[in-house]
Amino acid sequence: MASALNTIETHTCTNGLVIITEPMSGVQSAAMRWLVPAGAVFEDIHNLGTSSVCAEMLMRGAGSLDSKAQADAFDHVGALRDLSNSIRYTQLSASMIGNRIDQAIPMLVDMIRNPMMASDSFAPSCELASQAIESLADDPQQRTALAARLRHLPTPFNRDTLGTVEGVQNLTHDALCAWWKDHAKPTGSVISVAGDFDPAAVIEQIESLTCDWSGSVKQPAAQGNPARGYAHIEDESNQVQILVVHDAPHEGHADSMLEKMVISVLSGGMSGRLFTEVREKRGLCYTVSASMRADKERGVVSNYVGTTPERAQESLDVLISEIQRIGEGNVTEEELVRAKTGLKSRVIFAGESTGARASAIAGDYLNLGRTRTLDEIIDKVNGVGLDELNSYLKRREMGTPTIQTLGPDALNAPAGL
Amino acid sequence: MASALNTIETHTCTNGLVIITEPMSGVQSAAMRWLVPAGAVFEDIHNLGTSSVCAEMLMRGAGSLDSKAQADAFDHVGALRDLSNSIRYTQLSASMIGNRIDQAIPMLVDMIRNPMMASDSFAPSCELASQAIESLADDPQQRTALAARLRHLPTPFNRDTLGTVEGVQNLTHDALCAWWKDHAKPTGSVISVAGDFDPAAVIEQIESLTCDWSGSVKQPAAQGNPARGYAHIEDESNQVQILVVHDAPHEGHADSMLEKMVISVLSGGMSGRLFTEVREKRGLCYTVSASMRADKERGVVSNYVGTTPERAQESLDVLISEIQRIGEGNVTEEELVRAKTGLKSRVIFAGESTGARASAIAGDYLNLGRTRTLDEIIDKVNGVGLDELNSYLKRREMGTPTIQTLGPDALNAPAGL
Repeated sequence: MASALNTIETHTCTNGLVIITEPMSGVQSAAMRWLVPAGAVFEDIHNLGTSSVCAEMLMRGAGSLDSKAQADAFDHVGALRDLSNSIRYTQLSASMIGNRIDQAIPMLVDMIRNPMMASDSFAPSCELASQAIESLADDPQQRTALAARLRHLPTPFNRDTLGTVEGVQNLTHDALCAWWKDHAKPTGSVISVAGDFDPAAVIEQIESLTCDWSGSVKQPAAQGNPARGYAHIEDESNQVQILVVHDAPHEGHADSMLEKMVISVLSGGMSGRLFTEVREKRGLCYTVSASMRADKERGVVSNYVGTTPERAQESLDVLISEIQRIGEGNVTEEELVRAKTGLKSRVIFAGESTGARASAIAGDYLNLGRTRTLDEIIDKVNGVGLDELNSYLKRREMGTPTIQTLGPDALNAPAGL
Repeated sequence: MASALNTIETHTCTNGLVIITEPMSGVQSAAMRWLVPAGAVFEDIHNLGTSSVCAEMLMRGAGSLDSKAQADAFDHVGALRDLSNSIRYTQLSASMIGNRIDQAIPMLVDMIRNPMMASDSFAPSCELASQAIESLADDPQQRTALAARLRHLPTPFNRDTLGTVEGVQNLTHDALCAWWKDHAKPTGSVISVAGDFDPAAVIEQIESLTCDWSGSVKQPAAQGNPARGYAHIEDESNQVQILVVHDAPHEGHADSMLEKMVISVLSGGMSGRLFTEVREKRGLCYTVSASMRADKERGVVSNYVGTTPERAQESLDVLISEIQRIGEGNVTEEELVRAKTGLKSRVIFAGESTGARASAIAGDYLNLGRTRTLDEIIDKVNGVGLDELNSYLKRREMGTPTIQTLGPDALNAPAGL
């Protein structure tokens, strides 16, 4: 079993930077994730979109290499890289053949520590960030998700990571540079590497390139009470988007695996209740799914249906009734076996990808304060009992739901689940 | 090197069914692809969309298992499956933990050979196929690609695999069942399996379940001359879609790798010419790319830009000028090194995924008549010389291009490249 061979190590540098390594057998690639505490939650309220513009700027030259020279150098090494901003972090991702990681690391460190942030890159970066916001108009599913997020989560965790057109327009080059400098700090940053590489050598190389780096950033606290409830966006699209969002345990909560099992029963495969009831039996929609996202502080379940205007109300009704029905605690032994098998298969599939492993170990560290092996997760899945699951369902805390629709007409939505 | 351990074997059954196996070390999963000669090219002109409805029906029960029982059984084994129709083939894909493949195979064979095709599944399957067609209205990029395909390729290879609303409406349950029966034949079908499994056992099991199967299907010939040239779809979207399509060598052509290298120079990484000239230097667009698709008979390169109405004309102009410029045969040594490194990295990354390997060996067999190891492909990449590449560019045969735009206003497009 491949996973048994992997040893995950967590190394904390004296400046607070955390480096997590997982060598994997049977692969030639290596993947890195570098999470910097510079997500959308840290943006000034007048400059929403700062992290989006920043992610663009960070790709445009660093150290002694200008934008084009940097692109050439990474392609010369065969390293693919990407920078993206999420709600809490800005993430640098890189993949390469493992035996060239030593050539990529100095350039990756430069991207975070010494970005060029050239003034002539600023206008095109703002332009691209604005285009991304404008192109949202053509993506009804994403617009629905953002509208639901805005009303479901507390400030500032309800932000759209793309920002606003005004926020980007208000941003200055100086403000952007200062913002990155304030947030690109070692304490609060996590680097993970998974695949074919020598952990000791990688840790030593990264540490030698970051030992003179210092400072810390703390994630902000949540503020205020979110609105939640039902809202509709009128839109003359051919499809209706329906999203029912409710609370879930945070990642480190003792109930977290139980909630994941519930989602697997609802939506884990083609035998899942939502697929069976909404799509298969009634042909109500093309897409139906439930998914869970959780971090250190909170979890959220999103139940989604994409359908036609004629079928929208019935789709929502059936979706709500399935969410309520499972709350009675009526999961069967056979459903549990399938849900477990599905969860374990997905864990093993993802365990074969260096990128997925690098993301998983960084996520575990940030959300749980420690890493987990694949075997530990599989043991946890296997350990869930049917009575335990059904009694969890009877005390499941979903909070006030947020129901968001987008389409020609508003629907009748319940106030609670 | 993991790839060196893999032995790819091609087994042809007496009924013509081809089974290709590639055991992989260091993985626990196994992936299967089953290509059946039942793609959109085989549809009756009055029933366009038959293969799309059929793919839906094939997921709804087989052998003694009705739709729900089948979904339960696959989830019980932890096997993920998908059915999709492409232009030439209907493809059954499955992924599972390798040690359960023997439980999945009988059910997978039943899906192709003994689908239930229940009459009460027919209406919902047609409904979902129609919804997929209608939801295209919300996907401007896909609409642009389909419009370009329609005018660039000869009949029937220019079809939309989703079909038409009328074609689906005209379809009867009897006609659908007869169509599948006529096309689900062993000669012309290919099964590939990659990952953690015993090849001899898998071949024996599949063969024992298919030895009483017979018949053959041949791919149709191309008819007529496609229109090509420039066309515009007027659409009040916030983005403009630009697609420049031209001919490329077919997969088995001696120039195929040279064309792939050209595409890698244009679009293989962030140092690619298109990214540099269109996005990076001028900030003209959010997305720009070139990609190549080739099969046994023909190849096509698609150059794509997604941008705003204000930047659309300049984006098209720069795109065209870059396509023309590289045609002068001016690739540099450094560009070639980067293009090779990029191609090799992608080959190795994909080589670590059981699903990607299963797709690759089936594709090689269908397009080349034989399979290739990763090492063979990498040797081929390494073997490309700079003079060879630049002299290829001077004789590059791109045919009459098809230029398709979608947005508020038509653009000025050239007649040739």
